[in-house]
Amino acid sequence: MEDARLTVRIDAHDAPLLGHGKIRLLEAIGASGSISGAARTMGMSYRRAWLLVEAMNAAFAEPVVATRPGGGGGAELSPAGIEVLRLYREIEERAAQAALPALRELATRLAPR
Amino acid sequence: MEDARLTVRIDAHDAPLLGHGKIRLLEAIGASGSISGAARTMGMSYRRAWLLVEAMNAAFAEPVVATRPGGGGGAELSPAGIEVLRLYREIEERAAQAALPALRELATRLAPR
Repeated sequence: MEDARLTVRIDAHDAPLLGHGKIRLLEAIGASGSISGAARTMGMSYRRAWLLVEAMNAAFAEPVVATRPGGGGGAELSPAGIEVLRLYREIEERAAQAALPALRELATRLAPR
Repeated sequence: MEDARLTVRIDAHDAPLLGHGKIRLLEAIGASGSISGAARTMGMSYRRAWLLVEAMNAAFAEPVVATRPGGGGGAELSPAGIEVLRLYREIEERAAQAALPALRELATRLAPR
């Protein structure tokens, strides 16, 4: 029964570091090659996407998103960004797998739809 | 290094079911014996606490919070509520344990404070 699903969020120093939204944004930047393209894909304002990128870049020792020089607003994931994405996906997968039996038990207690 | 911490949220049928806030509210109701007392403890309006309780009671087959009859606004966790709380804590603990190695690796990439 997959009626119940786990989502993970990671806090650092008691402030939100990474969650579903920021991770989807990183993936969209990787796919579209720009912050504005990623914002469009996600139905998010450019300003909001930019602020989320700034927050992530400030939180990590190395920037996770690199803006390409030479105008045009291109951006890409840095090697650090690719690694952060991989680690988040690993955390998410391991957490979901470990929680599965208890999650299934919880799902049996849901109201019938 | 415990600079990075995992928080789990559980969605059911693509809607938020349980997260840190609702779980703390359940615990506060169990400790204080009323929804209003729990709301006060959490610095939350009574209305908001009541809406969260209603949402949880509707989501599960059996209500998780039972209001005591006879006036005075007393409330307590039902047996189903106690079990839901236990399952959430189990999910949280197992997820955190399984994710720990990757979480530690992620923490090494944080900016120095």
